[in-house]
Amino acid sequence: MVEIRKVQEMDAEAVWQIFHEVVAEGDAFCSDESVSREQALNMWLTDDTYVALVEGQIAGAYSLFPIHSGHGSHITGAAYMVSSRYRGTGVGLALGHHSLEKAKEKGYLAMQFNCVVSTNEAALALWKKLGFKIIGTVPKGFQHPKCGLVDTHILHRFL
Amino acid sequence: MVEIRKVQEMDAEAVWQIFHEVVAEGDAFCSDESVSREQALNMWLTDDTYVALVEGQIAGAYSLFPIHSGHGSHITGAAYMVSSRYRGTGVGLALGHHSLEKAKEKGYLAMQFNCVVSTNEAALALWKKLGFKIIGTVPKGFQHPKCGLVDTHILHRFL
Repeated sequence: MVEIRKVQEMDAEAVWQIFHEVVAEGDAFCSDESVSREQALNMWLTDDTYVALVEGQIAGAYSLFPIHSGHGSHITGAAYMVSSRYRGTGVGLALGHHSLEKAKEKGYLAMQFNCVVSTNEAALALWKKLGFKIIGTVPKGFQHPKCGLVDTHILHRFL
Repeated sequence: MVEIRKVQEMDAEAVWQIFHEVVAEGDAFCSDESVSREQALNMWLTDDTYVALVEGQIAGAYSLFPIHSGHGSHITGAAYMVSSRYRGTGVGLALGHHSLEKAKEKGYLAMQFNCVVSTNEAALALWKKLGFKIIGTVPKGFQHPKCGLVDTHILHRFL
């Protein structure tokens, strides 16, 4: 059973630990290990950040953020992360559903991900399941620690 | 004859005037008229901003900026603007050529534009001429003051 609620100050350490783990893996986020705890928490302790709890433990999080201002502000970006201990247990799916609802509630017309690594099959399968379409592919968009330069996809879904 | 040089503090007013004009037109940049002079100059008075001069007058500018950090930092973004008085005189082409050279010099592998408005035919023609390809299209990505919601293109070129 996954519970989702707004992030709180007391979640900072758990959120940082998950972020740090994902970044150390190096195959999903553009951010690398040079990102400090303070910088990470600036991205993940916002009014638009939600955490997923499994048996009281923080298992993952998502954050909505603008990708463009003004004339492009009707589309939201979003980032997701799930602790390795909880992958494959439906946490990502729960975060995905919740974020789509929240984004719609906030009045966005669409959601867009600018950098989904083409080797990240779990993420791609999840987003396709949730109705996202690949609207573009950046050739060699990501420096993968094991695969070298790999493509990234741009995903989009109307809300 | 177009001369291109690094932006200087003394260019601030001219750069702001061009930015303000482009933003008031409302059909090319996501930024809208809510952007203050200070915010605009934070984007356009950087180490990676260059201005084009025609007979000593500032006719346009471009600025390189990162679109992703870390694993995506080998691709640069860029923004360009040309004063309406100098459009169709080769200023955009000169800025485009210069920016491609500068980006290559700085070690980037590719250049990418995340939001080229589909109705901006002059820009699209220019970028195609300079070797860019449309790698994706965001449906209804831009709130156009005259046309309503229009698509935006993502353009890319290896350096």
